[in-house]
Amino acid sequence: MTLTMAELAKALNGHLWGNGALEISGAAEAGQAQPGQIALATSAAYLQKLPRGGMALLAEGMEPEALGLEAAVLVGRPRLAMAGLTRAMDRGPDFAPGVHPTAVIDPSAEIPDDAAIGPYVVIGANVRLGQGARIAPHVSIGRDTVIGRDATIHAGVRIAHEVVIGDRVVLNLGASVGGDGFSFVTPEKSGVEQIRDTLGERADLREQHWTRIHSLGGVVLGDDVEMGANSTIDRGTIRATTVGNGTKIDNLVQIGHNVVVGDDCLLCGLVGIAGSARIGNRVVLGGQVGVSDNIFVGDDVIAGGATKIFTNAPAGRVLLGSPAVKMETQIEANKNIRRLPRLYAQVAELRESVMKLIENTARDKS
Amino acid sequence: MTLTMAELAKALNGHLWGNGALEISGAAEAGQAQPGQIALATSAAYLQKLPRGGMALLAEGMEPEALGLEAAVLVGRPRLAMAGLTRAMDRGPDFAPGVHPTAVIDPSAEIPDDAAIGPYVVIGANVRLGQGARIAPHVSIGRDTVIGRDATIHAGVRIAHEVVIGDRVVLNLGASVGGDGFSFVTPEKSGVEQIRDTLGERADLREQHWTRIHSLGGVVLGDDVEMGANSTIDRGTIRATTVGNGTKIDNLVQIGHNVVVGDDCLLCGLVGIAGSARIGNRVVLGGQVGVSDNIFVGDDVIAGGATKIFTNAPAGRVLLGSPAVKMETQIEANKNIRRLPRLYAQVAELRESVMKLIENTARDKS
Amino acid sequence: MTLTMAELAKALNGHLWGNGALEISGAAEAGQAQPGQIALATSAAYLQKLPRGGMALLAEGMEPEALGLEAAVLVGRPRLAMAGLTRAMDRGPDFAPGVHPTAVIDPSAEIPDDAAIGPYVVIGANVRLGQGARIAPHVSIGRDTVIGRDATIHAGVRIAHEVVIGDRVVLNLGASVGGDGFSFVTPEKSGVEQIRDTLGERADLREQHWTRIHSLGGVVLGDDVEMGANSTIDRGTIRATTVGNGTKIDNLVQIGHNVVVGDDCLLCGLVGIAGSARIGNRVVLGGQVGVSDNIFVGDDVIAGGATKIFTNAPAGRVLLGSPAVKMETQIEANKNIRRLPRLYAQVAELRESVMKLIENTARDKS
Repeated sequence: MTLTMAELAKALNGHLWGNGALEISGAAEAGQAQPGQIALATSAAYLQKLPRGGMALLAEGMEPEALGLEAAVLVGRPRLAMAGLTRAMDRGPDFAPGVHPTAVIDPSAEIPDDAAIGPYVVIGANVRLGQGARIAPHVSIGRDTVIGRDATIHAGVRIAHEVVIGDRVVLNLGASVGGDGFSFVTPEKSGVEQIRDTLGERADLREQHWTRIHSLGGVVLGDDVEMGANSTIDRGTIRATTVGNGTKIDNLVQIGHNVVVGDDCLLCGLVGIAGSARIGNRVVLGGQVGVSDNIFVGDDVIAGGATKIFTNAPAGRVLLGSPAVKMETQIEANKNIRRLPRLYAQVAELRESVMKLIENTARDKS
Repeated sequence: MTLTMAELAKALNGHLWGNGALEISGAAEAGQAQPGQIALATSAAYLQKLPRGGMALLAEGMEPEALGLEAAVLVGRPRLAMAGLTRAMDRGPDFAPGVHPTAVIDPSAEIPDDAAIGPYVVIGANVRLGQGARIAPHVSIGRDTVIGRDATIHAGVRIAHEVVIGDRVVLNLGASVGGDGFSFVTPEKSGVEQIRDTLGERADLREQHWTRIHSLGGVVLGDDVEMGANSTIDRGTIRATTVGNGTKIDNLVQIGHNVVVGDDCLLCGLVGIAGSARIGNRVVLGGQVGVSDNIFVGDDVIAGGATKIFTNAPAGRVLLGSPAVKMETQIEANKNIRRLPRLYAQVAELRESVMKLIENTARDKS
Repeated sequence: MTLTMAELAKALNGHLWGNGALEISGAAEAGQAQPGQIALATSAAYLQKLPRGGMALLAEGMEPEALGLEAAVLVGRPRLAMAGLTRAMDRGPDFAPGVHPTAVIDPSAEIPDDAAIGPYVVIGANVRLGQGARIAPHVSIGRDTVIGRDATIHAGVRIAHEVVIGDRVVLNLGASVGGDGFSFVTPEKSGVEQIRDTLGERADLREQHWTRIHSLGGVVLGDDVEMGANSTIDRGTIRATTVGNGTKIDNLVQIGHNVVVGDDCLLCGLVGIAGSARIGNRVVLGGQVGVSDNIFVGDDVIAGGATKIFTNAPAGRVLLGSPAVKMETQIEANKNIRRLPRLYAQVAELRESVMKLIENTARDKS
C-alpha cells in the first residue's frame, strides 16, 4: 500500500518536484500530516500549514521551492488528483479470498473461482456472479439474479430475485435492490385518482381498501453504478426499473417501481423518485430532491437541494424550489418574498395618498 | 404459473374474446410482449403496438376484432385487473418449505408446522408465529413478539421485542419494527421547550445533556399492513405505536414513537411522522410528506408530495405546501408569487403617478 | 424488574404519598393502567381517568388525597421523571451473556470477558470491544474498529472498518456507520461546479463520467451517542467524519462524509447533512431538515421541521423555512403570502383610482 512520490506523480499525471524516492504511507490535510504522510495543500489556505521537510500535493502554479518541502507532486486539477491519490491509498474493508464455509449457496448458482464471499452470505438458485466478485458478510441474493464482473457488495446488502447488475458495481452497507413496488389499487376510483382528475375536488368520501399490483419486472443496474448505504430501488411492475451506466446514488435514496434513470447521474442523499418517473442522462439531483411519479426530467438537468419536481423538466434546466422552477426564478422569488413587508407598506401609503387626492379633488370641485 | 386466457378472464371478472385455450406464460407492455406473453394495452396509446396474432388485455369498449388478435380479455377497471393479473403471474422470491437448519430459534418460540424459515433467521424467546409464515434469510425477531397468519417477511427485516403483528402482513427488505423511540429530556427546560412556549424567543443559552426516556410500549401492526424496504417504525413510550388494518407503507418511511396511524392509509416514500402524531383512516401522504409531533391528521386527508403538515388537519382536506394549506390555496399562492415581479412594477409605476399627481395638485394650488 | 413506590420515589427524587410498599409491575397512561401498574397522570387532563385505589405518578402541586389513590409519587419535572421511571421498567431486548457459538470473530479481535455477542455476528481483524458490550444478532464490525465501554448494538447494525466509537453508545436496528462518502469528480469541470461559480449559467453541456474519490478517513462517534434505525453516517475522505459526545440521532438520518457534528445535538428523523458541513454544539434539527455541504451551523441553532439550511447559520439562531431564515421572519413571510390576494385587489383598485384621477386632471386642464 506504500508508493513513492515518483510513482504518485506518474499515477496522477502530475509533475514531481524534489525527492521522488520518498515513500508515502498515507495522506492527510496539511496541518495534520504525520511523518510519512503526504500533506494535501492544493488550495492556498493550506499552504502555511505545510510541515517543513515534508511531502505535499500542490496545485499547478504553486511554488514548492518557497515552502521548504522535501518533495511535492503538482497537479492541474486537484479534485481529480484526489481520486487517484485516494484510490492508491485505500485499503478498503477486508474481503478474505475464497468462499467462507458458512455461506449458503444454492448448488445451481454460478460462482467464479476468484470470488471472495464472506460469512453468512445467502445466494439463491440460478444466481450468476461475475469474475472478481467481492461479497461481504450477511448479503442475500435472490434466485435468478445476475451480477457482472468485479462487483463490490458491502455488508448487509439485499438483492432480491430476478435482478440484473452490470460490471464494477458498488453496493454500500444495507442497500436494498428489488423490493416490491408501491403500487396499489382500490376496487372503485380512489380519492387520489379523483383529485388528479379534478385538481382538488372530491365526490363523496368512502371506504377504500388497497389491493396490491404485484411487481413482476425486476431491476436492471448498468455498469459502474454505485449505491449508497440503506438506499432502496424497487422492482418494476411489468418491465424492469432501470439505472443507467455510471450513475451514482447516495445514501437513503428511494427509487420507485418502473423508474428509468439514465447514465452518469448523481442522486444525492434522501432523494425520492416516485414510480414510473424517467430521469435523463447526466442529471444531478441535490439532497432531499423529490420527483413526482410519471414525469420526465430531461438530460443534464441539475436540481439544487430540496427541489421538488412536480412536472416535466426540459433538458439542461437548472432547477430550485418547491414547486421546482428555474434557479434564477426561484432566487428572484425568494427576494420578492423577503421584500414584501416594504411592498405592503408602500401600498398602504399609496392608498392613503390616493384617498387624499380623491378627497382634494372632490373638495376642489365642490 | 401458466394459466389460460379463459381462466384469466374469469379471474379478472372480465370478458373473453377469441381463443380461451391459449396459455399465458407472462405479461408485458404492448410492443414488448414475447410469444406466449399477454400484451397490456388498456390505454389507447398502446393499441397500435399490439402484435398481430397475439393475446392482449384490453379495456372495455375496445374492439378486439379490428386488432388482429387471437385472444383478448376485456376489463372494466384496468388498474384493478392489473392487480389480479400480476398476482396470478408472480412467482415471488423462493421460500423453501421447512425450517432451515441454520435458523436459531429459541425453544420457547411457537413455530407452525407449515412455516418456511430461511437461513440464518434468529427468533427469540416466546415468539409466536402464525400459520403460513414465510421468513426470508437474515431476519431477526425479538422476544415475546407475536405475528399473525400468512406473514411474508423479506430478507434482513428487523422486528424487535414485544411487537404484535396481524395477519397477511408483508414486510419488505430491511424494514425495521420496534426500535427505540426518539425521546429525550434535559434536566432543565431545553431550548426547544422554550421556543414552543414563546414562538421563537429564548432565554439564556446553556449546557443541555439529553437523557433517554425509554420505550416500554411496543408496536402493533394491523392485518394486511405492508411496509416498504428500509422503513422504520419506533416503539411507543408507554403504549404501543400502532398502524391500522390495510395500511400500506412505502420505502424509507419513518414512523415515530406513540404515533397512531389508522386503517387503509397510504404513506409514500420518505414520509416522516413525528412522535405522538395521530393519523386518521384512509389518509394518503405523498412522497417526502412530513407530519409534526403531537398533531392530528383527520380521516381521508390527502397530502401531495413534499407537503409539510405542522398543525391539525380536518377530515377530508386535500393539502399541499409547506406549511400545508388547502391544495387550491397553495396553487393560488404559487401563482401569486410568480406574478410578484409584475406587482412590484405596477406599484413602482403607481408611486410615480401618484407623486406626479401630488406635485400637480400642489402646483395647481400654488 | 419490579420495584416499590418508595423505591421509585427515591429514584425519581420525588415525594411519596400513601403506601410506599406497593409493588409496581409496569406503567401505563391513566385510564389504561392494569392492577399493579402505575398510572401516569402528570397533566391535569389525565386526573379524572385515574383508577381509585391505584398508584399514580403525579406532578407536584396535585393533590393525591382527593383522587382516592392508594399511593402516589409527586415529581417536579414530569418529563424528567419519565426518563427515570421508564429506565427502571425497561427490560429491553434479550442479550444472552457470552459469545454465541455462531459468531465469527477474527482471532486478532479483543473481546472482553463480559461481552454478550449474539448469533451470526461477524467481527473483523483487530477490532477492540470495550467492557460490557452487548451485540445483537447479524451485526457486522469491520477491521480495526474500536468501540468503548457498555455499547448496545442492536440487530443488523453495520459498522465498517477503521471506525472509532466512544462509551455507552446505542446503535439501533439497521444503522450503518462508515459507508463510502458520496464524493465523485469528473475529468473536466462538471456542470455542478460551473453552476456554483456562475449561480446558474452553464457553458456547453458535455459528457461527464464520475470517478470516485475514495474515503480514507473513518468515522468517530463520541461518548453517549445514540443512532436511530437505518440511519447512515459516511466515512470521511482524509480525516474522519465525527459526531460529538451526547448527540442523539433519530431514524433514517443521513450524515455525509467529512461532516463534523458537535456535542449534545438532536438530529430528528430524515435529516440530511451534506458532505463537509459543520454543526455546532447543542444544535437541534427537526424532522426532514437539510443542511448543504461545506456550510457551518453555529452552536445552539434550532431548526424547525423541514427547514433547509443553504448558508451559514450564526450561533443561537432559531430557523424555519426553505431557504432557512429566522423563525419569526418565516412566520411573517407565510402571513404575507397568505395576504397576497388582498394586496393584488388593493393594487388593482389603486390603479383604477389613479387612472381616474389622471383622467380627471387631464380633463380639468383641457
